[in-house]
Amino acid sequence: VTQTIVSSATREVVIGFDRPFVMIGERINPTGRKLLAEEMRNGDFSRVEADAVAQVEAGAHMLDVNAGIPLADEPALLAKAIQLVQAVTDVPLSIDSSIVEALEAGLAVYQGKPLVNSVTGEDEVMERVLPIVARHGAAVVAISNDETGISEDIDVRFAVAKRIVERAADHGIPAADVVVDPLVMPVGALGDAGLKAFRLIRRLREELGVNTTCGASNISFGLPNRHVVTGTFLAMAIGAGMTSAIMSPLHPEVKSAVLAADVLAGVDRDCMAWLRANRDPNAPAGERGGREGRRRRRAVE
Amino acid sequence: VTQTIVSSATREVVIGFDRPFVMIGERINPTGRKLLAEEMRNGDFSRVEADAVAQVEAGAHMLDVNAGIPLADEPALLAKAIQLVQAVTDVPLSIDSSIVEALEAGLAVYQGKPLVNSVTGEDEVMERVLPIVARHGAAVVAISNDETGISEDIDVRFAVAKRIVERAADHGIPAADVVVDPLVMPVGALGDAGLKAFRLIRRLREELGVNTTCGASNISFGLPNRHVVTGTFLAMAIGAGMTSAIMSPLHPEVKSAVLAADVLAGVDRDCMAWLRANRDPNAPAGERGGREGRRRRRAVE
Repeated sequence: VTQTIVSSATREVVIGFDRPFVMIGERINPTGRKLLAEEMRNGDFSRVEADAVAQVEAGAHMLDVNAGIPLADEPALLAKAIQLVQAVTDVPLSIDSSIVEALEAGLAVYQGKPLVNSVTGEDEVMERVLPIVARHGAAVVAISNDETGISEDIDVRFAVAKRIVERAADHGIPAADVVVDPLVMPVGALGDAGLKAFRLIRRLREELGVNTTCGASNISFGLPNRHVVTGTFLAMAIGAGMTSAIMSPLHPEVKSAVLAADVLAGVDRDCMAWLRANRDPNAPAGERGGREGRRRRRAVE
Repeated sequence: VTQTIVSSATREVVIGFDRPFVMIGERINPTGRKLLAEEMRNGDFSRVEADAVAQVEAGAHMLDVNAGIPLADEPALLAKAIQLVQAVTDVPLSIDSSIVEALEAGLAVYQGKPLVNSVTGEDEVMERVLPIVARHGAAVVAISNDETGISEDIDVRFAVAKRIVERAADHGIPAADVVVDPLVMPVGALGDAGLKAFRLIRRLREELGVNTTCGASNISFGLPNRHVVTGTFLAMAIGAGMTSAIMSPLHPEVKSAVLAADVLAGVDRDCMAWLRANRDPNAPAGERGGREGRRRRRAVE
């Protein structure tokens, strides 16, 4: 059974088949967040720290950290953000950049074994990123596009993912340390985006035996009531075998769909996480959430 | 592609692969509803009529009608309920009883082609129910248990379903008119209830080529925040290929999960149903829901 083990200085997280879904907080990303971008550019990381703490409190098992700000010194900003986030939380991080120097700067300061986000199937990108990932003993997100772009054909996307996994092996990176992103498109624009993602996720799991992740919120771009669409997508993707996603645990519709899907996929043993998350804070101690209540009742009978 | 076509006097509904999921309203059922049971027993069907209208307004495509009240004249009550429901709504009905005489009484008064709920894999039940279903040209829900009860083994449940489909064919009922209920257990008690349901639904669709349904709310029995569990279950079941369920469209978490799952399964073309259900009633006419707004904007450009 495939397990991708990532870590901070003090905590290990396992992304794996038949395990609870790993929620990777998406929030530390200046793309589309003007104020955050401006603050980071000026060396103010207070919002980065607050977002890190809030997401972990909301249930994030890992955090994605991105410092992609146009015309800024991205390697320096990303390294700084990673150090500060590691100082205020103990969850493992996903180091997120399309600039190889920024990935290197992030890896240089990182404590533990991170997820490097990402490598594509483009030859030049693979030849630059994979040696760095191997040298640091990191895990890596593999995005299933190549020089020709993102194929509409899931057989092509599957083949690209397979090629990245094979190339990673050539560099000494085991398949268990490659987490494939099937690339999720907005379903409002491409009506078969959900179907294709589910089919590809299932094949990646069954035929390639790899863990999977994606940027989940992209699926609902442009639609009303979008967090319900994102949450429902995640539940169906979990049903198809997806094992992690970059997402927001701060939206209750998204988080509760993931936790319910874990119950239904049989990976939340005795519904413990569900009961914990849905405890009624106003109920008397013995009646909370069901399990404790039931235990007590049984003891009384 | 399998299609189960049911009808009222004036409206046809198709349960089928690659079609929007069919929501069968669960509410007209006195089981566990003391007040409703008491009223029905006394010949007061006002709540039945109100529940019928409310569920159809909330989006139910069909309604399940059950009159199972201990020590009452169930055949007479069920016939009466069906006549009244058909007078106030035009959706096709599921005639729900475990008593053959009640199914017969319901069929005798029904206008159109109903779903008969249900037949099991017990020989005696099949030999009594299937001839009646065939004579009325109805469709039937097949529940995958037999004389030995409900098997924990989904191979056994699949085999029971297959036997019912074959026996139905002997009576001249095509497989397209048999909608199989895989039997959904409470996941709070049986941790693999979700997984088993999804696996069985997939096999019933891929290997037996039949439509499927279930009593969805059973999955969340005993759990806190249960409507989210039920909605998430339905979304994952739709991902596995389920085509209808007896459920409550009156719970927003349940209904919106189904509508979002239809979007993600690619059966809500252009997201029309999703946009209609999520229109902002306060928005000016041209800006509602996105689609009309976008059309208008395009016309102006």
